[in-house]
Amino acid sequence: VSRFGTSPVGGEADIVATFAPLAVRFPGAFGLSDDCALYAPEPGHEIVLTTDAVAAGVHFLDDDDPSDIGWKALAVNVSDLVAKGARPRIYLMSLALPEAPERPWLLSFVAGLAEAQAAFGIVLAGGDTDRRAGPLAITITALGEVPAGTMVRRGAAQPGDRLYVSGTLGDAALGLRLARTASLATGLGLTAGEVAHLVARYRRPQPRTGLVPVLRAHARAAMDISDGLVKDLGRMAAASGCGARVAIDRLPMSPAFRAAVDRDRRLMRDAMISGGDDYEILAAVAPERCRAFEDEAARTGVGVTAVGTIGDGSGVTVHDGDGRAISIPRDGWDHF
Amino acid sequence: VSRFGTSPVGGEADIVATFAPLAVRFPGAFGLSDDCALYAPEPGHEIVLTTDAVAAGVHFLDDDDPSDIGWKALAVNVSDLVAKGARPRIYLMSLALPEAPERPWLLSFVAGLAEAQAAFGIVLAGGDTDRRAGPLAITITALGEVPAGTMVRRGAAQPGDRLYVSGTLGDAALGLRLARTASLATGLGLTAGEVAHLVARYRRPQPRTGLVPVLRAHARAAMDISDGLVKDLGRMAAASGCGARVAIDRLPMSPAFRAAVDRDRRLMRDAMISGGDDYEILAAVAPERCRAFEDEAARTGVGVTAVGTIGDGSGVTVHDGDGRAISIPRDGWDHF
Repeated sequence: VSRFGTSPVGGEADIVATFAPLAVRFPGAFGLSDDCALYAPEPGHEIVLTTDAVAAGVHFLDDDDPSDIGWKALAVNVSDLVAKGARPRIYLMSLALPEAPERPWLLSFVAGLAEAQAAFGIVLAGGDTDRRAGPLAITITALGEVPAGTMVRRGAAQPGDRLYVSGTLGDAALGLRLARTASLATGLGLTAGEVAHLVARYRRPQPRTGLVPVLRAHARAAMDISDGLVKDLGRMAAASGCGARVAIDRLPMSPAFRAAVDRDRRLMRDAMISGGDDYEILAAVAPERCRAFEDEAARTGVGVTAVGTIGDGSGVTVHDGDGRAISIPRDGWDHF
Repeated sequence: VSRFGTSPVGGEADIVATFAPLAVRFPGAFGLSDDCALYAPEPGHEIVLTTDAVAAGVHFLDDDDPSDIGWKALAVNVSDLVAKGARPRIYLMSLALPEAPERPWLLSFVAGLAEAQAAFGIVLAGGDTDRRAGPLAITITALGEVPAGTMVRRGAAQPGDRLYVSGTLGDAALGLRLARTASLATGLGLTAGEVAHLVARYRRPQPRTGLVPVLRAHARAAMDISDGLVKDLGRMAAASGCGARVAIDRLPMSPAFRAAVDRDRRLMRDAMISGGDDYEILAAVAPERCRAFEDEAARTGVGVTAVGTIGDGSGVTVHDGDGRAISIPRDGWDHF
């Protein structure tokens, strides 16, 4: 589906009409026909807010399927809400398009958003569309809800807490490399199915919505991992005034990723520790809560794996099976 | 103040730290150190939400003073809240920068935001920063509050309602032309003070926050005028299932704009009727409320002017002093 061609949609009003089906389940969107949306949280609840932009060439590839682009734009925001223990509710979207898009491209983009909405339990409340030079960019602001006083903070970890991650790490960073360089798959001896899995992990992040109540019940601190484990754990440790240790041989790997690591050990460090785009949950859990946290997470179908501990001091140390510190890049992905 | 040079700020964390002072008055921003912000409306209130992006070359000029850019990015969003009768509360900002900015540029940008925050009564709650190709772009999502059930809708106008606009129209559209083409001022016989006034109207829109309670008390429908009176009134009429008539010789002009019109009558149509960037309020008021609406608006220091009426039928007619229809461009500014 090509984005630009000879039959672009007919102006702003036409684009807005194309998005209107995404808003039908939310009365406060007024069918996207008013200047603002209207929203009220449930009694006794607070609103959790986040904003994240994705742009072609930075967060997705220009020729990615538009349904994947729509999915990802929403998923990266919902991932932030989930990490706070918030139930996703509504979002606003600002779309920057370098040209008026072709209708099939736009319909596919909307279909990806619609699928993500259904998966995450969130609806479109309003938005803004502009034509401007530069890459296609989608900026979403997402709102979720928590019972008052229960938002899970980033900076509340304490020494002695155990560190958990959800799902598996490194898949998306490797998937991006595979999407960019088709020949890499052969070098790593990956099957077509393994490649497809890894690329899908890059293109369609899965916010762990099932963990929302589990995080709220048991996590002392949490955040999502979007810029690589080391960098994001560094942020949690700094915000908590603590240090953190991670055991590299505890990091959870998908079978496809493990197959690639068997061929190239460096992937472990590059993609797992400092790669980005995981959109998994990083949580610090007090020792007495760990058993319940693990059990309840497993029952949601999303496994969590203990990968390290919070301690005194500062910074992040990654160590091998013998307890030796491993040299790691100081930072993960930095947008500057 | 140049934006790019040899001493850019030192990465994302440094940029976030520069913005932190904008968030000090809002505890739910957590000093910009968490992944999300936390917010709850006052009891009995609903949240009004809007999102609008501004980009260099589209909504401001690339070499505009960074404090003006910051001001305008926030003002265009607050203008939407005000039109709904909502009191501005918090905002999230997503910043797309083509290069890491110089510190003086960034500090000036933050100063413009800080000034706008103080003027509008709104505070930063969170955000996102990215480096990407393309123009500098700022996407803001702003939240305001209304007592439950009192948001002023766009589509609630009824035949017989009188149409009002706040302030004066056309200044910003002419100001943009003057900012782009310095020689135009001489052709129009404008003084330096008049030019400065008109350009400031483009660069520093003034959301009519004082009108918030007046709109809520008396307006049947309202919206802000950002894409030109004819286009935006067309939207109000369409959303209300009505038609609208406007008397061109009733449209309020600033003294500077009037001086320009004396030299070039076409400005009246081009800049006043179909120009953009006014950020004034358009309101439909039931006849029995007009007197109170005018009086209370005047007491806030922002005049409102009756410019037309809502009627049966559809579309917008602009007529002259003799009641003859004037031919107007079908649309105002369209982003596509």
